[in-house]
Amino acid sequence: MLTITKPTLVLDERRVRRNIAAMAAKARRLGLRFRPHFKTHQSRAVGRMFRDEGVEAITVSSADMAAYFAADGWRDILIAFPLNILEAAAIGRLASRCRLGLLVETPESLPALARRVTAPLDIWIKINIGANRAGADWDDRALIEGLCRETLRHPAFKLRGLLTHNGRTYQARTLGALTRLHADAMRKMVRTRDGLAAAGFPGLEISVGDTPACARLDGFGGADEIRPGNFVLFDVTQLELGSCRESEIAAAVACPVVSTHPARNEAVIFGGAVQLSMADVLSRRDGRIYGRICRPRGSGWGPILPGTAITALSQEHGLVRTTAAEMRRIKAGDILYVLPVHSCLTVNLWDRYIGLDGRPVPTVRACPMQTFHNN
Amino acid sequence: MLTITKPTLVLDERRVRRNIAAMAAKARRLGLRFRPHFKTHQSRAVGRMFRDEGVEAITVSSADMAAYFAADGWRDILIAFPLNILEAAAIGRLASRCRLGLLVETPESLPALARRVTAPLDIWIKINIGANRAGADWDDRALIEGLCRETLRHPAFKLRGLLTHNGRTYQARTLGALTRLHADAMRKMVRTRDGLAAAGFPGLEISVGDTPACARLDGFGGADEIRPGNFVLFDVTQLELGSCRESEIAAAVACPVVSTHPARNEAVIFGGAVQLSMADVLSRRDGRIYGRICRPRGSGWGPILPGTAITALSQEHGLVRTTAAEMRRIKAGDILYVLPVHSCLTVNLWDRYIGLDGRPVPTVRACPMQTFHNN
Repeated sequence: MLTITKPTLVLDERRVRRNIAAMAAKARRLGLRFRPHFKTHQSRAVGRMFRDEGVEAITVSSADMAAYFAADGWRDILIAFPLNILEAAAIGRLASRCRLGLLVETPESLPALARRVTAPLDIWIKINIGANRAGADWDDRALIEGLCRETLRHPAFKLRGLLTHNGRTYQARTLGALTRLHADAMRKMVRTRDGLAAAGFPGLEISVGDTPACARLDGFGGADEIRPGNFVLFDVTQLELGSCRESEIAAAVACPVVSTHPARNEAVIFGGAVQLSMADVLSRRDGRIYGRICRPRGSGWGPILPGTAITALSQEHGLVRTTAAEMRRIKAGDILYVLPVHSCLTVNLWDRYIGLDGRPVPTVRACPMQTFHNN
Repeated sequence: MLTITKPTLVLDERRVRRNIAAMAAKARRLGLRFRPHFKTHQSRAVGRMFRDEGVEAITVSSADMAAYFAADGWRDILIAFPLNILEAAAIGRLASRCRLGLLVETPESLPALARRVTAPLDIWIKINIGANRAGADWDDRALIEGLCRETLRHPAFKLRGLLTHNGRTYQARTLGALTRLHADAMRKMVRTRDGLAAAGFPGLEISVGDTPACARLDGFGGADEIRPGNFVLFDVTQLELGSCRESEIAAAVACPVVSTHPARNEAVIFGGAVQLSMADVLSRRDGRIYGRICRPRGSGWGPILPGTAITALSQEHGLVRTTAAEMRRIKAGDILYVLPVHSCLTVNLWDRYIGLDGRPVPTVRACPMQTFHNN
């Protein structure tokens, strides 16, 4: 058992490897390129576990994150975030050392990019299929064809394909709703690609792949690559959505109990927003929650305690509400494991995980290359 | 003007110094010890600005944070968080190098603490006056007297006083409600102290001090010290509560615009949960928001754009909703300044601020003493 004295981010590497292997096998079975999003784990050590499964192409969400992984030998990196033209210098440095993909959605950004970056770039057009965050609307043919034309004007740019993130699947509370939302996205992407082929822009790829759809569905006909990220760790959000089983959640925050209140079936743990993030999820059973609770078991953690969840968070306090039966077993000085609501945001707060064997697994925050926040 | 190419936490040091001076002056006027909470700024450099105002005693929320500031010469530190007995070794090391205060609320923790720590300790009893997070209920005389008795059994422990955090003031949407909630807390604290004096525990101090009450009220009769923290930077939550003026908010995150959607009066900035935190606030005018938006002005930022706010956040995306008039002026490549909803949680994400003069101001995350997550 790990010796825990304060909040600690714990990684079950066996589960991580299983999650990676399962998704890699699915991508192979469906004939898709597997380009996992590394913003979830943010760790070169975890990245290498993907390499062990034959992964060669990855997704990140910033030029800094691309630089962090490029330095560990990754040579095919897609920054799946709308082009930030202000970072053209960093983009140019990256493009000279690896195959770099960028998202564009504004035609004017392309000549500006071409003026500043001379190395080859893969250009993906970011498509909005209804999530209404970033991207060119899928049915805005004039805009999308304009982006294609403008890309082809610059010899260093390769017009690679169309990319979307179907964030709407995070609202799908049933398998039926998920299936419909995913089919709608695929239909729009394929129709857009076919329209572009007919308009003189043939051979474009399609890149999709949110974790809920990638974890549960097979209908990726027409796609060339998938980019799920969260599945490597999963979390309580995915569990509530039905994207994973409890036994697939691969990271938890071990937290000391510091205060017990049997009269209200509540305990306070040392573990708040700065250890877990303020991400919450609407649980079917328990309303709005900030984490699920397990007891230590073996070298890791056991099953989720029934009727138990974090119901309020402040900076370092987590308020755990539980049942009378569980309450009798909780005392100050105990360790409880918190399964995070959104593992990407939780991991982002830490400079390391601790493996079940006690060994540290550093994240980007432990990297001396502290150009990250100031280059 | 600062050169910004990617999300950057910007600090207006003049405002910081003004906020510190104002609160220090108020504490002097009211005859209160000023023991500011350093969990908001988490920076030795900002800590020294407090020292310039004569501050000698500080509040932190963990043993790690105490160690970080103790190494910068602070010699009177209160860990305002329920005692985590698992960190007794770290507490012992701290207590041997500075005057250290701890919160207790469980009588059994005191002999356990005494077995592990031999250096002198100030013991504060954590009182719950109705926020129902941690602490002994203020009217639970048996428990509180038990805590006093148990403390006095250990010669190394000084029974210092009673401490509460009146977190309920963050729900007070009017000055009247704030005044009532604060008066209620003060009444309960004074009554508890007087009851203890009558029961044979004289001379106990009272420590209070949430930012809303400290910023707006004068009724601290009976208290010995105040511990506000957030006021050093303020934020949109405090602005909505009326605790500060816009011109007192001293930190903002500068974010590039990466995507514009004039048809829906929305823009996407490079600045999401990992730059801002998921903290939200219910604005009177605009519903649930994740930040207010300003344009750059001079070396800092200008006034809040009317009718403009972040209405959705994902990991690196912030969705800014604005008016048609403002929308016409926003384009990809612009910089917008985000005033954070909860400055403590935003600052916690960064290893440095950048001052308006471009100089870095490191936070605890930049500190090589990376014992913080593993000692």
